[in-house]
Amino acid sequence: MSGKDNLTAVLYGIEDLRLEQRPIPTPKDDEVLLEMDSVGICGSDVHYLVNGRIGDFVVRKPMVIGHEASGIVAKVGSRVHNVRVGDRVAIEPGYGCRVCDFCKDGRYNLCPEMIFCATPPYDGNLTRYYTHPADFCYKLPDHVTMEEGALLEPLSVGVHACRRAGVGLGSEVLILGAGPIGLVTLITARSMGAGRIVVTDLLQNRLDVAKELGADGTLVVERGADEQDVVKKVHALFGGHAPDKTIDCSGAEATSRLSILATRSGGCAVLVGMGPAEIKLPLVNALSREVDIRGVFRYCNDYPGALSLVASGKINVKRLITHHFNIEETAEAFNTSRHGLGGAIKVMIHVQPKDKNNPK
Amino acid sequence: MSGKDNLTAVLYGIEDLRLEQRPIPTPKDDEVLLEMDSVGICGSDVHYLVNGRIGDFVVRKPMVIGHEASGIVAKVGSRVHNVRVGDRVAIEPGYGCRVCDFCKDGRYNLCPEMIFCATPPYDGNLTRYYTHPADFCYKLPDHVTMEEGALLEPLSVGVHACRRAGVGLGSEVLILGAGPIGLVTLITARSMGAGRIVVTDLLQNRLDVAKELGADGTLVVERGADEQDVVKKVHALFGGHAPDKTIDCSGAEATSRLSILATRSGGCAVLVGMGPAEIKLPLVNALSREVDIRGVFRYCNDYPGALSLVASGKINVKRLITHHFNIEETAEAFNTSRHGLGGAIKVMIHVQPKDKNNPK
Amino acid sequence: MSGKDNLTAVLYGIEDLRLEQRPIPTPKDDEVLLEMDSVGICGSDVHYLVNGRIGDFVVRKPMVIGHEASGIVAKVGSRVHNVRVGDRVAIEPGYGCRVCDFCKDGRYNLCPEMIFCATPPYDGNLTRYYTHPADFCYKLPDHVTMEEGALLEPLSVGVHACRRAGVGLGSEVLILGAGPIGLVTLITARSMGAGRIVVTDLLQNRLDVAKELGADGTLVVERGADEQDVVKKVHALFGGHAPDKTIDCSGAEATSRLSILATRSGGCAVLVGMGPAEIKLPLVNALSREVDIRGVFRYCNDYPGALSLVASGKINVKRLITHHFNIEETAEAFNTSRHGLGGAIKVMIHVQPKDKNNPK
Amino acid sequence: MSGKDNLTAVLYGIEDLRLEQRPIPTPKDDEVLLEMDSVGICGSDVHYLVNGRIGDFVVRKPMVIGHEASGIVAKVGSRVHNVRVGDRVAIEPGYGCRVCDFCKDGRYNLCPEMIFCATPPYDGNLTRYYTHPADFCYKLPDHVTMEEGALLEPLSVGVHACRRAGVGLGSEVLILGAGPIGLVTLITARSMGAGRIVVTDLLQNRLDVAKELGADGTLVVERGADEQDVVKKVHALFGGHAPDKTIDCSGAEATSRLSILATRSGGCAVLVGMGPAEIKLPLVNALSREVDIRGVFRYCNDYPGALSLVASGKINVKRLITHHFNIEETAEAFNTSRHGLGGAIKVMIHVQPKDKNNPK
Repeated sequence: MSGKDNLTAVLYGIEDLRLEQRPIPTPKDDEVLLEMDSVGICGSDVHYLVNGRIGDFVVRKPMVIGHEASGIVAKVGSRVHNVRVGDRVAIEPGYGCRVCDFCKDGRYNLCPEMIFCATPPYDGNLTRYYTHPADFCYKLPDHVTMEEGALLEPLSVGVHACRRAGVGLGSEVLILGAGPIGLVTLITARSMGAGRIVVTDLLQNRLDVAKELGADGTLVVERGADEQDVVKKVHALFGGHAPDKTIDCSGAEATSRLSILATRSGGCAVLVGMGPAEIKLPLVNALSREVDIRGVFRYCNDYPGALSLVASGKINVKRLITHHFNIEETAEAFNTSRHGLGGAIKVMIHVQPKDKNNPK
Repeated sequence: MSGKDNLTAVLYGIEDLRLEQRPIPTPKDDEVLLEMDSVGICGSDVHYLVNGRIGDFVVRKPMVIGHEASGIVAKVGSRVHNVRVGDRVAIEPGYGCRVCDFCKDGRYNLCPEMIFCATPPYDGNLTRYYTHPADFCYKLPDHVTMEEGALLEPLSVGVHACRRAGVGLGSEVLILGAGPIGLVTLITARSMGAGRIVVTDLLQNRLDVAKELGADGTLVVERGADEQDVVKKVHALFGGHAPDKTIDCSGAEATSRLSILATRSGGCAVLVGMGPAEIKLPLVNALSREVDIRGVFRYCNDYPGALSLVASGKINVKRLITHHFNIEETAEAFNTSRHGLGGAIKVMIHVQPKDKNNPK
Repeated sequence: MSGKDNLTAVLYGIEDLRLEQRPIPTPKDDEVLLEMDSVGICGSDVHYLVNGRIGDFVVRKPMVIGHEASGIVAKVGSRVHNVRVGDRVAIEPGYGCRVCDFCKDGRYNLCPEMIFCATPPYDGNLTRYYTHPADFCYKLPDHVTMEEGALLEPLSVGVHACRRAGVGLGSEVLILGAGPIGLVTLITARSMGAGRIVVTDLLQNRLDVAKELGADGTLVVERGADEQDVVKKVHALFGGHAPDKTIDCSGAEATSRLSILATRSGGCAVLVGMGPAEIKLPLVNALSREVDIRGVFRYCNDYPGALSLVASGKINVKRLITHHFNIEETAEAFNTSRHGLGGAIKVMIHVQPKDKNNPK
Repeated sequence: MSGKDNLTAVLYGIEDLRLEQRPIPTPKDDEVLLEMDSVGICGSDVHYLVNGRIGDFVVRKPMVIGHEASGIVAKVGSRVHNVRVGDRVAIEPGYGCRVCDFCKDGRYNLCPEMIFCATPPYDGNLTRYYTHPADFCYKLPDHVTMEEGALLEPLSVGVHACRRAGVGLGSEVLILGAGPIGLVTLITARSMGAGRIVVTDLLQNRLDVAKELGADGTLVVERGADEQDVVKKVHALFGGHAPDKTIDCSGAEATSRLSILATRSGGCAVLVGMGPAEIKLPLVNALSREVDIRGVFRYCNDYPGALSLVASGKINVKRLITHHFNIEETAEAFNTSRHGLGGAIKVMIHVQPKDKNNPK
């Protein structure tokens, strides 16, 4: 495949994202070469473009961007058995060292040696050809689109969040924030049998989408609103009591606090969004009512569940995609995502012509 | 309320079920008096009628029959706060002693002092007026029917079974038996986010209902079929692999065995149906693959989840009701249920005129 | 038993603790009358004496003090079967309503209607005669002393903390604070098979007791110490890595922070001590490493485990008792506990002559 | 290291165990070369010698025997960081493929591609030089002996069994069988905080060792004893009630049955020993009382816990070793183990001179 086009989106530094040709890589024994199809833009991609870092992860050398992706298997390594050439696959973008305690104990997302697409110093996959460990590629059923395959990435965050929260049959769930992660969490909680689900956000138009995707109640919470007042309004939307689980998909100090204050005793506050390093919290309120506080770091063994959701045909995760661009239009795509132009929720970049690999 | 009609269905012994007047009871401080509305007939009711016993539970004195029920609150005891006169409620038919280790640990279904409707020596509630602890009555939302309220009882068995099995997002579930319990288990597993669900039964017409209620695959298994052959066919219906969970709702020796043999290593075989006291099992097959074997004894803290399911409006549990009778027609109702006349799945007895208390 | 002496310690308000005669109560059907033996002084007892309140719990009318207690069964109600007259019992001081969701689900410590000794408005049991629900009385084996029976109360907090933390075989555990709760947590963690246990405190003499009770390492942490420096020192004591679990038995802002920062990714920070209502926390550090934060509110179904520990004869919980007083010396006992006179850890008040009911 | 002695015990078939020279292997990048020290004989080793197979695992070509082992790191591969040359290590004998769902989910013991020492077709490690993945080697603290390192293997089975059973503080545990596995299970349960532990066996002399290692009660159960009678006697030893957990370390049909019948409702029967493929079970007794039945297949992430136990210095696992032989005496060692000569419990083979690598 040498000599072929391998156009790649490379982040050179702050506000410096370039399209350039890269050599086509060769898969190792346990890897596949993928002809990339669809790559969604995530908030973290934009964050690296704008700030050049997220916390301790700093872009110190050119890094290929992109990690919400799907592709077609173009070559397989000698030890690959789970997929074949031609398979349409979703790509789980991170994998651990496989030998540390975390990896052996089934919590590879916490592996300190994790290799994760588009997290420095590791390259992402907004490119035409990309190699990846085969066991982190999931074959898509024939009726699932490549865009849905790419959306398994954010959807897996929602799955991990709902699992960490212990959402189950009849759970009453409060979701703070109606951005992409709030919406996939809503979709997942609904599919796991949650009872009443209420979503809050700063913006009514985002809540309208939440309503469309199955929220039973929504609440606009203005910046600076009195938190006891918000708690009361939330409880009213649950019929006068507190929800079992609150999942904060926003990460603001106010929503972190609300996730504790609004939750039922013995319940669980799961915080997906992460805000400032230091935060003032009503901790005693949580402790004395045994409201557990749990974080969500990406996902772990959640792709199969997310794929099952999409394959069921019962969820409308595609509703999140508001804009489509070709890889050549990467700059415009990032601009749209970054500024939320045209009501952008999720912006999808097509490395192949749109629908080329989709079910007819 | 003295002097009022309190027509009651009383089982005097084998094949001796009589309708008679009984005094209207008075609720204790923590009880409510219920004007009964709908009472479904359960296999155990029929079993007592035909055999006068189930295992060690023997009908030694006249016993009111019936335990799948809903009613209207007619009076409340002095310490009752959770429901009011006029409330339409589903009745969880069993309650524990509240002071033993099981009760204090949240497993009241295992309480050795359990009082359970229509399990000797305790009276059931196929009667016009009945008292019950208020905390085991669950107020129905306005849009839920009284028949659905009565169906919470079998549905709670399905909920308990799925919870005991750990059914969750993407679980692949094999259900053995498409009778009422198999069907409510199917409905519940579907609602908890299960992936593929396959149902087996001896009869195609029962599997047709399973299909209608959401089964992805069905398989007629004839009596005496070769078990390795059945395992192969089941795995084929799961796309060539074993399901994570098998829930046996039949209780035959063959299905108990299949629940082990067909399940994935590390998975779970939950047995709801109970067959002969002694059974020949391929136990090493389960042990060496760490397939856990778990029983289901009624339910425990499962009514709220079952109610949430029904209230969601997304499940069609009413599909199980094939026949309706008035309490005066109790004999005919039992006959229909007992012999499966007219394709009977669930037979409902109306103590009040049908739809009197239902949403218009 | 009318006419008998029932000397009782009653808190009338801030700094107003009086000894007075009270009528001897009569047990209800499910209660026992107890001839009280030993009552330990808890930090909360002292807090009520000094401040007249703890959070929202305010002493508005005279309240009998005391809740860490053991006694002898003097009378039993008609429905009592678990204990008999003459039994030596430990008294679990709080019980729920038995009908709410928390109680039915096995989490009665979260019951909003909980009745708990010496928590306003409910009376405690530093008195000669006291009635209590029989199922919250635990018969002591013959070789266990009445003081040990009283100590089951703080020990149960340690048990609940270790269970909430998921301490198990080989767990590496950091305990912050070597007061009574820190020490019972240490004893419990040791007994549950923890590997290395490190204890920190402000004072070396308290750490000496921790060492004596089985701590593998101890560290004096001075007020205002640099937290990154403390983390390093703690990790060094674990052989160069982070502990799986941190249990904060202090409740200071500094220890709350340390419980997050010092814990291994995927581990658990359990906070028993509760400090100021609002606290500044490095929350993102916990979230991004999935370090769960859990509170401990008293205990729930933990007395049997605590009793098992004491009955094993392998733990030296008596080591905590540093001072003994008669009930007539209650004022002096409180003074000793309050000011930590004579190195006081746990001060025990004897309602009966010391050793009267103890094994010879 | 070429040219050096690499005496190796190779099983050629039934009753055909030979000592022969083998080439010294070279470690791969993620492996270590081990100079073997101590290798215990397991029942399965003897079983292969006598029967040439265990179930579907058949010795079809010469296979090195031995899998309960410790050694000294002699060389490390280029990617090895967890151990160094000279480290004394315990060797966990089985490892999975690292890419299947079981491996990624933390249950590698169920990996269908598992490579396990001395399980056909894979070689064991009763040899002088042996290579193994470094991450399955556990460095021993200085005060732990090489024999204890080898004993981590059976001890890990006890750990896995107790974890599968959910043994915790105050658990009352019945252990069926006082062979090596019964004894390590006893040691482990004791260390995890179990309350009363009762052990049964056919032979009093084995129960004497159980008593010595901490059993609270023991019971000789004769072959063919009436099972209801045995249940009664067992319950009497628990003070008149049923144990929470029963762990069957025998595998006979009678003990499998007893593990169900003797266990408390809501408890757990864990079966470590595996007997005949088909067994007659009182299944309804388990199901209707929600007594869960769980198997134990080797162990998984249990070596660290087992090492923690040994390193604590509080357990006497060495008590299991009754006989010592040099590798040259392998035939005699197997004979001793096979026939239980001289009251043999665990027979240890020394590849290096005894105590050469032990703490002085």
